[in-house]
Amino acid sequence: MGLFLTFEGIEGCGKTTQIRLLADGLRQQGHDVIETREPGGCDIADQIRAVLLDARNNRMISTAELLLYAAARAQHVAEVIQPALDAGKTVLCDRFCDATLAYQGFGRGLDINRIIDLNTYACQGVIPDKTLLLDLPVEIGLGRARQRNGQQAGPNEDRFEQESLDFHQRIRQAYLDLATQEPERFITIDAGGDPQQVAQRIATAMAVTVLP
Amino acid sequence: MGLFLTFEGIEGCGKTTQIRLLADGLRQQGHDVIETREPGGCDIADQIRAVLLDARNNRMISTAELLLYAAARAQHVAEVIQPALDAGKTVLCDRFCDATLAYQGFGRGLDINRIIDLNTYACQGVIPDKTLLLDLPVEIGLGRARQRNGQQAGPNEDRFEQESLDFHQRIRQAYLDLATQEPERFITIDAGGDPQQVAQRIATAMAVTVLP
Repeated sequence: MGLFLTFEGIEGCGKTTQIRLLADGLRQQGHDVIETREPGGCDIADQIRAVLLDARNNRMISTAELLLYAAARAQHVAEVIQPALDAGKTVLCDRFCDATLAYQGFGRGLDINRIIDLNTYACQGVIPDKTLLLDLPVEIGLGRARQRNGQQAGPNEDRFEQESLDFHQRIRQAYLDLATQEPERFITIDAGGDPQQVAQRIATAMAVTVLP
Repeated sequence: MGLFLTFEGIEGCGKTTQIRLLADGLRQQGHDVIETREPGGCDIADQIRAVLLDARNNRMISTAELLLYAAARAQHVAEVIQPALDAGKTVLCDRFCDATLAYQGFGRGLDINRIIDLNTYACQGVIPDKTLLLDLPVEIGLGRARQRNGQQAGPNEDRFEQESLDFHQRIRQAYLDLATQEPERFITIDAGGDPQQVAQRIATAMAVTVLP
């Protein structure tokens, strides 16, 4: 079985950049690496992503949102993650089950046991070996995310960024609590400073805990 | 509370036509009628419908399919059905929870208790007052459905019609079994013959059991 690493954190915490840098580093060490993301990661899940993140879909109720995340995850795990792990590859995934606990559970206030049950159903036994939590104050993360989206000409994917500051603060705290509850799986990284500094912190933590 | 009627049956059983004819008749009797359908019935659920029914999405796994139906249903119930019933309207819905039991349970072989649980979660207490099962031999229904789709220039919505004859026979039997298990809710109608004959059978059954 390959190694399954997930990356979590609030909007603008730098997951995308850090995944790319870590993937490059791991490839130089000879690892066969797949970079993927949620929601999405394959064609059908990307179609679900488009429904989930479209800012025009602001009438979406929380339970529908939760079920769409579970649907996208089920397809992504079965079609991409499980086959890659079976083939011995290293999978780096931008958001996974913890994001649903943080956003739909602690952000939206949905029942945590229902979310755990749906995550388990969608994943069919696939669990991350390690989860890197890129932690950052909410004001800094949202500032980065809004600057980035202002520069993009692509589809309108900011339904979550339009949520209140309080919503995002609940998400950050939820992630920190999840990390405390599962210290064996989580690695919390200070995501402040420039990307190369953060990459160095990740590399150091990885060398100690994952790739000795 | 208004009256909630659902229509079920295999592909090509004539649900769409019969819903239109019954809605016309009920409106002439003074009812305030809403016609809707699943998957879909509102903008967000229609976006999910497009993913579910697109014949190009033939890599979709059964669990993702089930979760997408539940997501579309949750949105449809909350945004359309519940408010209409609260306003005292009569809601005629083309497919509902029984379709998920028949297609994903007995057609795809997914766990029935999981489907019942997801239906309950999506519906938040909304249950049909009566369910009209339009029963027809599979060969006749699929023949009608294929003729209809051949005439349409619209999107490619025939992912389910491409399933095997055996699949559709399991669906028909599942519907008949569900009707046997819940005789108070189900009204099984012979859907053979021309549409006006079927409409007359429905009107007669409705006069006896629903609108005395």
